[in-house]
Amino acid sequence: MKPLDFLNLKYKPKESDLVCLFRVEPNKVSVKEAANNLALESSIGSWDRVEGLNEKLINRLGAKVYSINKNLVKIAYPIELFELGNMPSILSGIAGNIFGMKVVKNLRLEDIEFPKKLIDSFKGPKLGIDGVRKIIRVKDRPLIGTIVKPKVGFSPDKHAEYAYRAWSGGLDLVKSDENLTNQDFNKFKERFKKTIKKMDKVEKETGDRKIYVENVTAETKEMIKRARFIQDNGGNCAMIDVVVSGWSAFQTLRNENLDLILHIHRAGHGMFTENPKHGMSMLTVAKIVRLIGGDELHIGAVFGKMKGEEKEVKIIEKEIEKNIISSNGVLKQDWFNIKPMFSVCSGGIHPGTLKKLIESMGKDIIAQAGAGVSAHPLGVNAGARAMKQALNASLEGIDLKEYAKDHVELKMAIDKWGYLK
Amino acid sequence: MKPLDFLNLKYKPKESDLVCLFRVEPNKVSVKEAANNLALESSIGSWDRVEGLNEKLINRLGAKVYSINKNLVKIAYPIELFELGNMPSILSGIAGNIFGMKVVKNLRLEDIEFPKKLIDSFKGPKLGIDGVRKIIRVKDRPLIGTIVKPKVGFSPDKHAEYAYRAWSGGLDLVKSDENLTNQDFNKFKERFKKTIKKMDKVEKETGDRKIYVENVTAETKEMIKRARFIQDNGGNCAMIDVVVSGWSAFQTLRNENLDLILHIHRAGHGMFTENPKHGMSMLTVAKIVRLIGGDELHIGAVFGKMKGEEKEVKIIEKEIEKNIISSNGVLKQDWFNIKPMFSVCSGGIHPGTLKKLIESMGKDIIAQAGAGVSAHPLGVNAGARAMKQALNASLEGIDLKEYAKDHVELKMAIDKWGYLK
Repeated sequence: MKPLDFLNLKYKPKESDLVCLFRVEPNKVSVKEAANNLALESSIGSWDRVEGLNEKLINRLGAKVYSINKNLVKIAYPIELFELGNMPSILSGIAGNIFGMKVVKNLRLEDIEFPKKLIDSFKGPKLGIDGVRKIIRVKDRPLIGTIVKPKVGFSPDKHAEYAYRAWSGGLDLVKSDENLTNQDFNKFKERFKKTIKKMDKVEKETGDRKIYVENVTAETKEMIKRARFIQDNGGNCAMIDVVVSGWSAFQTLRNENLDLILHIHRAGHGMFTENPKHGMSMLTVAKIVRLIGGDELHIGAVFGKMKGEEKEVKIIEKEIEKNIISSNGVLKQDWFNIKPMFSVCSGGIHPGTLKKLIESMGKDIIAQAGAGVSAHPLGVNAGARAMKQALNASLEGIDLKEYAKDHVELKMAIDKWGYLK
Repeated sequence: MKPLDFLNLKYKPKESDLVCLFRVEPNKVSVKEAANNLALESSIGSWDRVEGLNEKLINRLGAKVYSINKNLVKIAYPIELFELGNMPSILSGIAGNIFGMKVVKNLRLEDIEFPKKLIDSFKGPKLGIDGVRKIIRVKDRPLIGTIVKPKVGFSPDKHAEYAYRAWSGGLDLVKSDENLTNQDFNKFKERFKKTIKKMDKVEKETGDRKIYVENVTAETKEMIKRARFIQDNGGNCAMIDVVVSGWSAFQTLRNENLDLILHIHRAGHGMFTENPKHGMSMLTVAKIVRLIGGDELHIGAVFGKMKGEEKEVKIIEKEIEKNIISSNGVLKQDWFNIKPMFSVCSGGIHPGTLKKLIESMGKDIIAQAGAGVSAHPLGVNAGARAMKQALNASLEGIDLKEYAKDHVELKMAIDKWGYLK
């Protein structure tokens, strides 16, 4: 009997196909044979020809390996294979069992091109970049923010006070950290209420609008309760740690259609994005987040404590900011009616890196400094001022060192941490 | 200023501490320095000494690196750091940002030891091994099952008919595949109803009890709707693809406390479990699943198409079957009142591997063969009979080849696929 054949190098993907780009390192077989096995396992196959698996079915629902270029393999999946609007189910096929098959030594899902019909089955960001800008009433510049540090340990009162000093120093956003949820020493509701009160205060005092990013990461129903609590108590933003919470819960949260910015933290992504040979690329994660509907996504800081090459981070940024991607990464993507997202750059950022970060990443970013604000020699408020001064220097095109001559907080920051030209 | 210090090699973990075992490959620093940074980032730290982060706080909430043995690092986390019962939030700390830090080239979370207070904050399996055995009315032997193949492509009628033939051939379980949910050609409700009708029929005909494992993977609310539909329509088991769905949704599903077996598929785990240097071990995944409360978990087949060394798979099996783990993996674990789970062995299994699998894994397993049933030369029913015959041979301690002399279906199976002595 002829082996099951999912190779079709003459196949031209249909507009309705979902296309995946895999990096394949085969194990004791050729790339071709490994690719055939991947296409089979990720669509309709089995390791042996079963009853009912005939040529007609393979033609209709089988994945097609249509391009092999060294280790890069493109596979087209007929749209009928998938349940529309069900992200976990889609990933069970194209990012499921195949990572553990013996025919591959390493396998990396580099990119997914979603067809229109699938795109249309998801909501995408409710607010997107424009919607977030309307809330904060800032049209053209990057947003700057901080994360309350230490990550955990403050009481609700101290947390709120910290936020107040950061906002009043000129920051747009204050964020709870990814591992702060509802611990005994800092309960969610009390923290939120106290902090939002400070946000109201500082908005009145400054005339500026502010964003408070509160972490709702939990079991799904509790997560939604916490997000509703934010909405019902004057908040404007909920954060979910999407990797540890999962795609189902994120879809559920988005489906609630709350009047909140959804801020997407990616803690844990490094488990599967960091190895260039194996796992799933951060680009793919970012596309999934945009499709489901985050408004702001952490994508890396380039100049900070976390890994993330400038080139890769910029590719991701382009993917989530633009509407049509023609030469980004490796696959094209038309986002149709799905709104663009803000890129959040965070992790080791300080005033001395801000100008360089903006030069590299453009205006549609949120630059978040944690220790880079609060470890300022004069404390959080001065750290916030230093960030704002660095932002202004950047907007006015003035060298940071020059600008620091008249701005003592910035001067102290770059004296402590240095700066990037 | 003295650098932040989370190293304390004299520290003896408290009974209430959560302990993690990491495999650390540092990047341009010593293991010690990398470990210090990991402890800091995964608990309360920042890259610089921030306001409010004092020795008192570090003592109270900081993680403690208490053991370094070559590349194996043990870190103890005070229980107060965590929100009880919130798995995603716990993982945001211990399995979050740290995977992407520049100080590590590779990092693998090998094991977690959960303290009693955390254990008590989760439900664990509702049924566990004993509960599943009660439903199927099988006391002492392994369970055998199949997965409907092709993975997707059948109509509801064909799916139900396939299940009928498999059950009537003597299998205990029939399962929908991980990427079959609610596709247009095979809608969930219609498939379920038609298949469960066949299950009722075969139970009447044979007098045996059967399990139908139906896949509810979806956005959380839809997932719960589907699980309730199963319960309300005479079903006994719901499957979730836990990696692609996520921990939040799984917790939510468990919290519904339905009268269903929860069958946990791990599609996608290979993204982060396969690299021996980086990611999270399958052992850790299995412990998390048990803690949240799966009744049956896919852990590998040893003799099939998927990776998974026998030694590793057996360590995982022991971890989810036993109540006190003293020398398993590397960390000990007392499971207190959390019930044990069934191990599901699946992926390339056929009648010729069953006896060997049972010899290796013992009686508390569910052996699932997909193509190994349905690609039998005489089809699904004969394939099911061959599996049952292989099971009987194993229970009676008779060599497969010997047993096959009087059992034609088994003979045809091992003539086709061979067998393991």
